[in-house]
Amino acid sequence: MGDSLLITEVRPWGGDPVDVLVEDGAVAAVAATGASTTAAERVDGAGRLILPALSDVHLHLDSSRLGLPFRAQTGEPGRWGRIMNDREHWRGAERSVTERASFTLAVAVANGATRIRSHAQVDADTGLAKLEGELAARERYADVCDVEIVAFPQVGILLEPGVVDLMDAALAAGADLVGGMDPCELDRDPVRHLDAVFGLAEKHQAGVDIHLHEAGELGLFTLSLIVERVRALGMAGQATVSHARCLASGLPGVPGAIERLAEYDIALTHAAGAQGWALPLLDLAAAGVRVGVGMDGQRDYWSPYGNGDMLDRAWQLAFVNGFGSDQHVEHALAVATWGGASVLDRSLRPLDLSDTHPGFAVGDPAEFFLVDAVSPAAAVMDRPAARTVIHRGAVVSVDTAIEGFEIPGRFGREGS
Amino acid sequence: MGDSLLITEVRPWGGDPVDVLVEDGAVAAVAATGASTTAAERVDGAGRLILPALSDVHLHLDSSRLGLPFRAQTGEPGRWGRIMNDREHWRGAERSVTERASFTLAVAVANGATRIRSHAQVDADTGLAKLEGELAARERYADVCDVEIVAFPQVGILLEPGVVDLMDAALAAGADLVGGMDPCELDRDPVRHLDAVFGLAEKHQAGVDIHLHEAGELGLFTLSLIVERVRALGMAGQATVSHARCLASGLPGVPGAIERLAEYDIALTHAAGAQGWALPLLDLAAAGVRVGVGMDGQRDYWSPYGNGDMLDRAWQLAFVNGFGSDQHVEHALAVATWGGASVLDRSLRPLDLSDTHPGFAVGDPAEFFLVDAVSPAAAVMDRPAARTVIHRGAVVSVDTAIEGFEIPGRFGREGS
Repeated sequence: MGDSLLITEVRPWGGDPVDVLVEDGAVAAVAATGASTTAAERVDGAGRLILPALSDVHLHLDSSRLGLPFRAQTGEPGRWGRIMNDREHWRGAERSVTERASFTLAVAVANGATRIRSHAQVDADTGLAKLEGELAARERYADVCDVEIVAFPQVGILLEPGVVDLMDAALAAGADLVGGMDPCELDRDPVRHLDAVFGLAEKHQAGVDIHLHEAGELGLFTLSLIVERVRALGMAGQATVSHARCLASGLPGVPGAIERLAEYDIALTHAAGAQGWALPLLDLAAAGVRVGVGMDGQRDYWSPYGNGDMLDRAWQLAFVNGFGSDQHVEHALAVATWGGASVLDRSLRPLDLSDTHPGFAVGDPAEFFLVDAVSPAAAVMDRPAARTVIHRGAVVSVDTAIEGFEIPGRFGREGS
Repeated sequence: MGDSLLITEVRPWGGDPVDVLVEDGAVAAVAATGASTTAAERVDGAGRLILPALSDVHLHLDSSRLGLPFRAQTGEPGRWGRIMNDREHWRGAERSVTERASFTLAVAVANGATRIRSHAQVDADTGLAKLEGELAARERYADVCDVEIVAFPQVGILLEPGVVDLMDAALAAGADLVGGMDPCELDRDPVRHLDAVFGLAEKHQAGVDIHLHEAGELGLFTLSLIVERVRALGMAGQATVSHARCLASGLPGVPGAIERLAEYDIALTHAAGAQGWALPLLDLAAAGVRVGVGMDGQRDYWSPYGNGDMLDRAWQLAFVNGFGSDQHVEHALAVATWGGASVLDRSLRPLDLSDTHPGFAVGDPAEFFLVDAVSPAAAVMDRPAARTVIHRGAVVSVDTAIEGFEIPGRFGREGS
């Protein structure tokens, strides 16, 4: 920080080669390649693409089993079966929560994601153990990525005793946001559930990020309850709804719900699931709703999917939305990069369909990744493994392949 | 052929290690590892998984641009825009149809697919040029994979003059099956379209494989027309419907349609698309309908997707179906391997949900691939690149990485 970095001969969003000068963690100038500039440090872009860094805005660092031996899925079908499967097995994992969360962060950063929001499960069985693991992992990699942590009541807030107090303690211990979980379907009492969530948000002056898997009309009802509370509490710009599957329903209530999200600057995060989970990304962007994507669970006790690569997730986002044109595939990549950043930092503008190449204006945060591809769409389709990653204006990872279960002590070059 | 091959210490579908003895292109014995057996040749499985070879039963070899520079999508939206985009550009591709089809076959085989059904576009503009390219590619790789070719009327049969005669000529020139294409939506005259398709099938004593993207009730209507003709002409076991999106509709007519497919042994091929294209795989298997999966177009003039790896497509199939349990992920892999094989060779039994590990009975075809993974589900999730591929009882590819655009002259070891 405070130093300058010149990234030479890079192509922002596939455009003509330029040099990007970074100072104090932000873009200071973008000029034709070769214009003489002094900078403390240089990165030779060698004609590669430069893109805003990937942002994973919906991750569960505490459950991840990335890098551990593949494990047969033992959970009973359905949400409750999987919750109990996690409860039965997580303590027996080959590595601690801290180690697993650290490894997953390392893989995410090496693949180009420098901004992360992770949920830490808080419940009567777990207490704060998973939160503490995530806090330790965040501390370990504080120099290479920014991590927000949500205190996440995976098992509901009302079903088990003491969860509100545990959530309160989690926020006191370092969690940044108050989570929620399917207020109708899980606790079966949406008002008391949301009262607890927003009560904690007021007490800790924290934002909220509520898991909402509820489908169709039920999800739209719960969403309307969330909007009411954001409005009543003056929390515009401080709320996120995760998954929001109800907006994929095509129901007549969806356009009105999207208008309300825009009005109160309620952001969405998305895991790019198939089968009725694909959000109407273009409608959301047209309305000015902030949308980001995340990797969700990573081959954990819920699901075997996940490889720690947010660029792979950008592919998945394009795929589930049926995007084929370069413009649309680029939009999926914009959601996975700048879109997520705009969810985490509300001072950044939401994606704008008329200005689709964000991230390179003077003053924009110097969070980038470089990859060898002819165009953004090609990068999404090919997902080349070698990437240079820049965080807060400094190179934090260069072609870092993280294999097996090796937690790197540091990233990138000497001194970074 | 005629030679014997002993594949030592391999785990069929992740089971205990065995030795698989192959003679005359078929499984001759499966015995505990180390039981002494004489064989002309040996492959050291080293504890790897062994699985039936992947089968790509719906591929467009003629349009593939695998290995060529990424190309921006220039087609107008919709089917017609893309048809015309292909028509305008395919002759200008950096490589000929023969070379592109050959390269794509090489990549498919190196990744473990030894049985392929490809569509060759026949229309007024193309004539037989694409078919000839596919025939040349098939000839080139006749030793390493089996390829069936469908004469495919991409632009309809009735819209342009001379297509029936071209289809007739294609079948005389070496195409194996008669294709069809959305009889209602494209030609807008399903009866005359299907009369032409089945008329050519009768004349050439060939099977049919009809593209049916038509959705909902319309697709179910067209499917019923196809079933009527299969029944009337005694063509049970000789028809395939590709995509069959209407069966993903959840409409009340779907179960009855599935019963009819089973009754007349009409097979389905599937490209594992998202957004309402996911076929009800478990219902189809329970009914005894043969289902296979294919890679469809490979980053061509229609779509930028595709990497030539059928194991990747098995992942995609599991993903779009929301499969998470090991059992279900294995089923997706079974569809991508044995399921497809049973579409191409009706003497093979269809997938059976009560016997989910096909391919290792005495007499089963010696078409396999070996991959280093703890279980079939792990293989689908990790898609390890290194694979040993066995076709007609002989090793045809060992860890063959095909990069850039290099058409291999031969595969695998000396003498194979």
